[in-house]
Amino acid sequence: MPGELITIGDELLAGRVVNSNAAHIAQHLRLQGFELRWITVVGDRQDDIIAALDQAVERASFILATGGLGPTDDDRTSEAAARALHRPLRRDPISWDIISGHLKKLHRPMTPGVAKMADLPEGATRIDLNRPRAGFYIGDAAKPIFFLPGIPEEMADMLATFVLPTLEERLPRQRAIGTRVLRIFGLWESQINQRLADLADIFPDLTVGYLPHFPENRLTLTAQAPTSTETDNLLEQAVALVVHRLGHHVYGQEDDTLEMVVGRLLAETGLSLALAESCTGGLIAHLITNASGSSAYFDRALVTYSDTAKSAHLQVPEDLIAQHSAVSAQVAEAMARGLHHLSRADLNLAVTGLAGSTGGRSETPVGTVFLALLRDEAFRLEQFQFRGTRQEIKTLAAYTALDWVRRAIIDDDFFVLG
Amino acid sequence: MPGELITIGDELLAGRVVNSNAAHIAQHLRLQGFELRWITVVGDRQDDIIAALDQAVERASFILATGGLGPTDDDRTSEAAARALHRPLRRDPISWDIISGHLKKLHRPMTPGVAKMADLPEGATRIDLNRPRAGFYIGDAAKPIFFLPGIPEEMADMLATFVLPTLEERLPRQRAIGTRVLRIFGLWESQINQRLADLADIFPDLTVGYLPHFPENRLTLTAQAPTSTETDNLLEQAVALVVHRLGHHVYGQEDDTLEMVVGRLLAETGLSLALAESCTGGLIAHLITNASGSSAYFDRALVTYSDTAKSAHLQVPEDLIAQHSAVSAQVAEAMARGLHHLSRADLNLAVTGLAGSTGGRSETPVGTVFLALLRDEAFRLEQFQFRGTRQEIKTLAAYTALDWVRRAIIDDDFFVLG
Repeated sequence: MPGELITIGDELLAGRVVNSNAAHIAQHLRLQGFELRWITVVGDRQDDIIAALDQAVERASFILATGGLGPTDDDRTSEAAARALHRPLRRDPISWDIISGHLKKLHRPMTPGVAKMADLPEGATRIDLNRPRAGFYIGDAAKPIFFLPGIPEEMADMLATFVLPTLEERLPRQRAIGTRVLRIFGLWESQINQRLADLADIFPDLTVGYLPHFPENRLTLTAQAPTSTETDNLLEQAVALVVHRLGHHVYGQEDDTLEMVVGRLLAETGLSLALAESCTGGLIAHLITNASGSSAYFDRALVTYSDTAKSAHLQVPEDLIAQHSAVSAQVAEAMARGLHHLSRADLNLAVTGLAGSTGGRSETPVGTVFLALLRDEAFRLEQFQFRGTRQEIKTLAAYTALDWVRRAIIDDDFFVLG
Repeated sequence: MPGELITIGDELLAGRVVNSNAAHIAQHLRLQGFELRWITVVGDRQDDIIAALDQAVERASFILATGGLGPTDDDRTSEAAARALHRPLRRDPISWDIISGHLKKLHRPMTPGVAKMADLPEGATRIDLNRPRAGFYIGDAAKPIFFLPGIPEEMADMLATFVLPTLEERLPRQRAIGTRVLRIFGLWESQINQRLADLADIFPDLTVGYLPHFPENRLTLTAQAPTSTETDNLLEQAVALVVHRLGHHVYGQEDDTLEMVVGRLLAETGLSLALAESCTGGLIAHLITNASGSSAYFDRALVTYSDTAKSAHLQVPEDLIAQHSAVSAQVAEAMARGLHHLSRADLNLAVTGLAGSTGGRSETPVGTVFLALLRDEAFRLEQFQFRGTRQEIKTLAAYTALDWVRRAIIDDDFFVLG
């Protein structure tokens, strides 16, 4: 029962954006056991959208379309859908209420472009009943047809909460499918692959997918079996084996992020965290404060980018910087101890390094980063040599720092083994 | 004279890889003035490849296909091309020489799979005459048809050195094409559209594309004219009109980012910047330090998340916080002035607010943000009410702060009008 995806937008035909929506949709359909057989990309011309829809109706068992649902003149998908499916456009009262209510709240006037977003083909139902997000479903046709917005977050949200469950209902499958996502930091894809090379032999009904997602890796385990109890069983065994093989590098599952896991651990243990950042430039603090409720455990970050700021705010002696340079083990340790003195936090983390792309020297090349972590009497300091662009080095340093906080909390030997 | 691109491979339909080949080809065709009107993605089934080729021959003026040219069983493009174009497969002697010579050098035996790579549809010519890279051109058909490998580097190389020059020769263009991208902050897509509603009437040869990219918007202007001088002229006029209509909201062009523009302005003017962040949690500092060389103008950010940290590092009086709460105009101003006292930077920016999702009250609901900017004697303070998720509010506050720094540098009236 293969389906078709139609992605709409001049920006795709001009190569101004990469079609990551298509990859996202394809992957999630596959994980749920739905096969995509065609992906068609057309621009904002109405005739081309209509022709693509006609062809999809002809050959596919289900149809997803994305893009062209916004308020501007080049958003022509709803009208094209109406014409292709021979259903006139009608003002959808629910859409109108949501959109006009939203505008009223923002004290913004209704415009013809925005009003257009409330017009749906006859028989279509709006997908998001709470927010002013475009997207509708034609459920009374012979084949289910979904129109989703091109904005990646909105599309992904509707795919997960509406499209996949609706497809499950409309196109019931014979076998149960289950998936688990494991989130991994600190190993390259090839290292993971090597440690798990025999997984497919051990579990013949398991499909293993690798998805590098800088700076981490995601491992997707998909199991097929006659019943969902059997898939759950199989997945449980496989997850246990993977965690055994990869150890502390598996930091979370499903939608976990490293900063959320760290935040959860800090909240659960009641420990507080303070940061002294140099080369990461505030990125660690930014990640930590992405979690709601982070003020319970996060108190401050001193982003001391200049030497002056390191001395002024962290009491790092000027002559220590002069003697060893700002990118040194000595200065990293002094930053952590200066921070602890001021913050009285339980965990005090300092990072100094060279993110590049300029400023490298033979003793301290670009990518040199020192991490120092202080917890009461315990202390760990390490030198890293990261490779990549400036932003990649910042990101690697920040994630390594977060991973240290995680391991310092869960692993009794973290400071001993350091 | 629009063309079609067919990208072939099961991995694309399963979402295991993002179709970056399509974006690369689309972009380079567009830059050379060739229009792509359809992109079709099919898997490795021979029937689907044949159907896609049939359709492209029917509707397109030129055809590019990528993928499925390798030695394995699932590489079926050459055979599908032979069948779709009714040209039998023939062993190509040049290909055979190159491939067998290469194997001999590596002391590797010929296999049926590798031998298959020397079989081309009758009339096809091999593209790479030096290396054992798959790829051929059917030049004696009514429409030029190119088959390129799916390996990105090989594809990109053949596109640049063979496909584009050949297309230039085969399809001499009547009209030149040019594009400009404008980057816009502080206006909704519908607001931009309303202000530019008559653009298409004023410039009939101009196409306007909108691309929301939270928290900003990108506007793409594409012009077609008989000569490139005329397209340049047209684009210049259109850009001038858009900038006139949207004013300071246009912050940059092409690949500019707001943080890069701010960094460039700081570097050019020799002004320095210090930050006192609360609800943005280090995000402004992170953005500013993404630019290489930012240490020349960025000195420090004090991410004072707790009240204690605000008093300890920014000398905000404890009773001021007790009286007005940490999210108040008074505390924002005290943070900026305390920061200035310590940093001696030219520009001192402070932000305090409630990013949510908890902690809102009726007087200060979630999304309330105060910005304060101090430049010598000049001072501006404003209260904002942002809407969205926690991360969206952080992002909106951080970008608004960066935009203030930009406008404080370029606009003499910024502090006066505030």
